[in-house]
Amino acid sequence: MAEENGKGVDLKAGFLQVYSRLKSELLEDPAFSSTDDSRQWIDRMLDYNVPGGKLNRGMSVVDSYKILTGGQLSSDEFFHACVLGWCVEWLQAYFLVLDDIMDGSHTRRGQLCWYKVPEVGLIAANDGILLRNHIPRILIRHFRDKTYYTQLLDLFNEVEFQTASGQMLDLITTHEGEKDLSKYKMPVYNRIVQYKTAYYSFYLPVACALLMAGENLENYFDVKNILVEMGTYFQVQDDFLDCFGDPEFIGKIGTDIEDFKCSWLVVQALEKATHGQLSILSESYGKSDPAHVMRVKTLYKDLNLQEVFLEYEKSSYEHLISSIEAQPSKKVQEVLKSFLHKIYKRQK
Amino acid sequence: MAEENGKGVDLKAGFLQVYSRLKSELLEDPAFSSTDDSRQWIDRMLDYNVPGGKLNRGMSVVDSYKILTGGQLSSDEFFHACVLGWCVEWLQAYFLVLDDIMDGSHTRRGQLCWYKVPEVGLIAANDGILLRNHIPRILIRHFRDKTYYTQLLDLFNEVEFQTASGQMLDLITTHEGEKDLSKYKMPVYNRIVQYKTAYYSFYLPVACALLMAGENLENYFDVKNILVEMGTYFQVQDDFLDCFGDPEFIGKIGTDIEDFKCSWLVVQALEKATHGQLSILSESYGKSDPAHVMRVKTLYKDLNLQEVFLEYEKSSYEHLISSIEAQPSKKVQEVLKSFLHKIYKRQK
Ligand SMILES: [Mg+2]
Ligand SMILES: [Mg+2]
Ligand SMILES: [Mg+2]
Ligand SMILES: [Mg+2]
Ligand SMILES: [Mg+2]
Ligand SMILES: [Mg+2]
Repeated sequence: MAEENGKGVDLKAGFLQVYSRLKSELLEDPAFSSTDDSRQWIDRMLDYNVPGGKLNRGMSVVDSYKILTGGQLSSDEFFHACVLGWCVEWLQAYFLVLDDIMDGSHTRRGQLCWYKVPEVGLIAANDGILLRNHIPRILIRHFRDKTYYTQLLDLFNEVEFQTASGQMLDLITTHEGEKDLSKYKMPVYNRIVQYKTAYYSFYLPVACALLMAGENLENYFDVKNILVEMGTYFQVQDDFLDCFGDPEFIGKIGTDIEDFKCSWLVVQALEKATHGQLSILSESYGKSDPAHVMRVKTLYKDLNLQEVFLEYEKSSYEHLISSIEAQPSKKVQEVLKSFLHKIYKRQK
Repeated sequence: MAEENGKGVDLKAGFLQVYSRLKSELLEDPAFSSTDDSRQWIDRMLDYNVPGGKLNRGMSVVDSYKILTGGQLSSDEFFHACVLGWCVEWLQAYFLVLDDIMDGSHTRRGQLCWYKVPEVGLIAANDGILLRNHIPRILIRHFRDKTYYTQLLDLFNEVEFQTASGQMLDLITTHEGEKDLSKYKMPVYNRIVQYKTAYYSFYLPVACALLMAGENLENYFDVKNILVEMGTYFQVQDDFLDCFGDPEFIGKIGTDIEDFKCSWLVVQALEKATHGQLSILSESYGKSDPAHVMRVKTLYKDLNLQEVFLEYEKSSYEHLISSIEAQPSKKVQEVLKSFLHKIYKRQK
């Protein structure tokens, strides 16, 4: 999205410049007297794990803050909004590095997972922790004198806690060894997605922008709920595209069926399946053999899940739009609509 | 130490009561709508990993605060000092759970390491992260209205960053596969110990007590340095006892030689060894075969490392005492001396 116009290109280039500055500052952090070896390690680890994603979460802090303040940003404002955007990206990198270890994944963002790099291995677990620790280092350097510094720390702490709690729910629900489809129900699905994805991907960037704009987050409970709902919709799309998206377009081949994921599709299928269809699912879901995968996909089609998805998409959109238009502030409405329009009917 | 007198027993019992309360509060944290399954998981995970150590770090917050305020604590003061003590214990639990994964360890505190428990496995990595996330949950609940709340957050963030940085140094220096003794030099050893152990074990508890007593930590750089020096001395003792301590007394059989640890003993041996002795070390250090271990121990004895240690202990003690007595505040001197006397010439 950001790349679609000249403005987007500028934003991305400016955003990436801020990354370089933050990295240099971390490598010279006076709280740790580094050695050449450790400086090189962190330098490489950061480049490998932090800036290689789509950066949508991070850049949306800048976009949101621009809308909220309604004008051009001073270079200082632009810089600070980018710094908070990068904190969101650092948080994401931390979760992904550790998630890949726990899931035994092989690749991420078109390269080996960090822990799979031969000389890294389980040192990656500590690198994940370092990524997390960089956030308060960045915040204390650039925000300690702001009136909202403590609120920023509280915000990142709360969102991290929610994400880690969602990750726990995911891990104990979809626990390897067990393969128990009876746990895959819509309220469980929604709770996992809400905590594991929605808070940090959707609420956190807007909350950062609101704090920078001088707002008190206690007045924005509705905004939080709307963003969490949007995050849930985003994850449902992700699950749908994993099976029905164009691999060339989404840039990877989905493996949710093979991986026994608690995907929106399998939860829907379990709700709608006949007795006979249930036994297909329990036989074939979570097996890597292509014949089993194909049986599941055929079942999804038999159950019309593509249509069910389109209806879900439509009704989510309508519900979100009406919640957004009930917001008292036009600028807040605009922020929320810009998020929604970035993801509505996305194909990747 | 705490168990030696009636007062100590009271402290420990009271301290453990606070643990139960904190656990209940975490299990009902409104920031996460838990399920029965996840509540049970956390309950068990906390009991398994948090309260089973010696609790010296945590209880020393209470002891230090008592000395600083010079009197009996109100029940509210006692409670708050215990809460900060438990935050230190939670931080330690978080580091230990993850360290055991990275080190491939088997047992900890007389039981299986958490990740080695069959139904846990790598979920332990996320549990470690949850332990870490509980600290700001505890702090926001009990300290948000204190004038020093932000300083507390900053303190825990800084000390966690230093510990994770020390862990990184340790991991990249003593990297499995490589087995390169040429990196094991005294400045490297000191840097690892300072960051990985001393800040969180010695500085953090005192800094918590100072904040509670209304002090500004910026005025306590010397105290920080003294505590870091004491933490280094403590780790040297730990390394010495791993080889020369009485296994019955220290409660475990040391394996630093087998594990190719960057121990104070091997660093000393490498400094003092002749050419021939060096080749014994490079042949035998890091091998689990008892004959190799014995060769290393014999070499340590040939190099008189027991005597070198006694001299180190004596000169550390004297240097620490004179630094402590240069402190302007008698109460601060008393806090520091009580730490030092708890560890001086310890046999376990
Ligand atoms: Mg994963
Ligand atoms: Mg996962
Ligand atoms: Mg997916
Ligand atoms: Mg270890
Ligand atoms: Mg270790
Ligand atoms: Mg030891």
